[in-house]
Amino acid sequence: MKTRAAVAFEAGKPLEILEVDLEGPKAGEVLIEIKATGICHTDEFTLSGADPEGIFPSILGHEGAGVVVEVGPGVTSVAVGDHVIPLYTPECRQCASCLSGKTNLCTAIRATQGKGLMPDGTSRFSLKGQPIYHYMGCSTFSNYTVMPEIAVAKIDPKAPFDKVFYVGCGVTTGVGAVLNTAKVEVGATAVVFGLGGIGLNVIQGLRLAGADMIIGVDINNSKKEWGERFGMTHFVNPTEIEGDVVAHLINITKRGIDQIGGADYTFDCTGNTRVMRQALEASHRGWGKSVVIGVAGAGQEISTRPFQLVTGRTWMGTAFGGAKGRTDVPRIVDWYMNGKIEIDPMVTHTLRLDDINKGFDLMHRGESIRSVVLY
Amino acid sequence: MKTRAAVAFEAGKPLEILEVDLEGPKAGEVLIEIKATGICHTDEFTLSGADPEGIFPSILGHEGAGVVVEVGPGVTSVAVGDHVIPLYTPECRQCASCLSGKTNLCTAIRATQGKGLMPDGTSRFSLKGQPIYHYMGCSTFSNYTVMPEIAVAKIDPKAPFDKVFYVGCGVTTGVGAVLNTAKVEVGATAVVFGLGGIGLNVIQGLRLAGADMIIGVDINNSKKEWGERFGMTHFVNPTEIEGDVVAHLINITKRGIDQIGGADYTFDCTGNTRVMRQALEASHRGWGKSVVIGVAGAGQEISTRPFQLVTGRTWMGTAFGGAKGRTDVPRIVDWYMNGKIEIDPMVTHTLRLDDINKGFDLMHRGESIRSVVLY
Repeated sequence: MKTRAAVAFEAGKPLEILEVDLEGPKAGEVLIEIKATGICHTDEFTLSGADPEGIFPSILGHEGAGVVVEVGPGVTSVAVGDHVIPLYTPECRQCASCLSGKTNLCTAIRATQGKGLMPDGTSRFSLKGQPIYHYMGCSTFSNYTVMPEIAVAKIDPKAPFDKVFYVGCGVTTGVGAVLNTAKVEVGATAVVFGLGGIGLNVIQGLRLAGADMIIGVDINNSKKEWGERFGMTHFVNPTEIEGDVVAHLINITKRGIDQIGGADYTFDCTGNTRVMRQALEASHRGWGKSVVIGVAGAGQEISTRPFQLVTGRTWMGTAFGGAKGRTDVPRIVDWYMNGKIEIDPMVTHTLRLDDINKGFDLMHRGESIRSVVLY
Repeated sequence: MKTRAAVAFEAGKPLEILEVDLEGPKAGEVLIEIKATGICHTDEFTLSGADPEGIFPSILGHEGAGVVVEVGPGVTSVAVGDHVIPLYTPECRQCASCLSGKTNLCTAIRATQGKGLMPDGTSRFSLKGQPIYHYMGCSTFSNYTVMPEIAVAKIDPKAPFDKVFYVGCGVTTGVGAVLNTAKVEVGATAVVFGLGGIGLNVIQGLRLAGADMIIGVDINNSKKEWGERFGMTHFVNPTEIEGDVVAHLINITKRGIDQIGGADYTFDCTGNTRVMRQALEASHRGWGKSVVIGVAGAGQEISTRPFQLVTGRTWMGTAFGGAKGRTDVPRIVDWYMNGKIEIDPMVTHTLRLDDINKGFDLMHRGESIRSVVLY
């Protein structure tokens, strides 16, 4: 079949919208009509050429929602007509990782996914007989795409595509980091570094978890109102305080009988390795947990004095919010449907596929929280 | 009163054994007759001058056992005649840290302890009217010492002083890192970097926890036999393998349906920041926990790519094995008494106080696991 798609032919160039060839689903695969897709910084990271694992030509996009329109042989978990969210982190429920109960990092199709291929080692997309590669196992910048059934989450069919697409990455990453990775408890104190889309979703995850103090840190004052909208209780602009931001954060988080200071949980949503260190060091002596969410540039490293760990801080990270896609993504969609979390205000711009490059421009200029592309 | 003690008058010089003045216990304090004390690398670290927080003149030693011979006003938790182990990490059971249930790092007397003083801000030791400072709140290199009652653990009076002194630091640090900090479960795989006293105690902690694979890493082949004596199942000498030790460890820990490799738990017992990184990176994708136990040199930093954390590894640390001293130390002594853990073979040398400097020499030359000084 043919499908309209935005193709990334090479790094640093705009996407080109054109018709490409798409082979139907093979065994264990499903064909999905994508109804909506977000434009995420990770797409931009790859398109820019900064991602050392970027593959071209490819069809980017990994944060979408759609409908199953055809299933390949042997598919049992979803059926034609099901509403689904594509999962860049699959959940096979059979590999050691899935069965461990300790991680969401399913390894079933990791090797081929990393090469831009389906599990059988080939691509379903092509143009004039030449393969076009898949991206993060999703390629949602295409009106139709093929996915392994282990990489689709069946969701409430009443959920609006133009909102719940965001559960495919940003919402789950932020909310999941709080609930699955940090396991924040009611009454905790927390600091969120970077109030972009991920940071705002961490904030609403903290609100959902019942945190007492939710401190947002951003060098852009316009983010204060955004943070407050989702539950932030305090805002810190590091460029507007005197002295070191870590000392400031430790100072304002002092509470209880000892007044020691430091947040119970901190989250880096910047990708900046210097900020990751600040996040660790602003966490509480004895029990602070600091979660790296942001993706750092290639080759960059984080550092600290080991004393920070020896005195009880834990440094951890999260991918896709520690969420098991087929299990947790439908629940998060339900939380949106019943009002436990918000998405609508974060979807700031709506575009058609032909205008997808404008979405990247909006992101570059910092004007969007999330742009959605509708098909 | 007078007591014989080994005094550290200045960094880099041998200890001097002489009589010093010791004031009796004030309110909430107890006078302890030290019966046995170990010589630990931390004493050496301070004596060498490398410890930026070292204070002189002082009476070092923090790993001992003895008998309460006098109690100050208001002391209720121990009585004259009780056998006790001094605690450099106290357990007041009233501060936010003790009450948190999340850490053993009691803060009740932290400020004064760090200055070499008792909680009232003065020293009990003096010589010719000039104060001699306490060390780590213990000063076990003295036949008699004064401690706050919150910093003594009452133990089984049948336990031999010349063995259970070691529970005051090394045993608890190693065994506790496994049980309290890493929380190792039956069937786990683990790597222990550095097979000195701490490493051997981590190994026996892993044996106690029921780990399947206990890999010891040391550049000294003579440590193989030591490790095996306490439960080590595999030995790796990084200087005798081809290629990178991390890749080697990931390779030999492959197991289960996915054969991914990496240990469930890794422990740094070297204090070498480069090894700390190897320990993190040799832990399992998705759920590996790496625990820093060793104390790094002043100003040294640990580094890694944040990708290591984002893909599910956790970097943490431990002090005194995460043990709450008054609660856990008596239990560890009981474990020794009923044969769950071993101590006897690790106490390789027995000295009198007059020969304490020989104990430091034995440590320098790597000839001792632990030397004990008997009074």
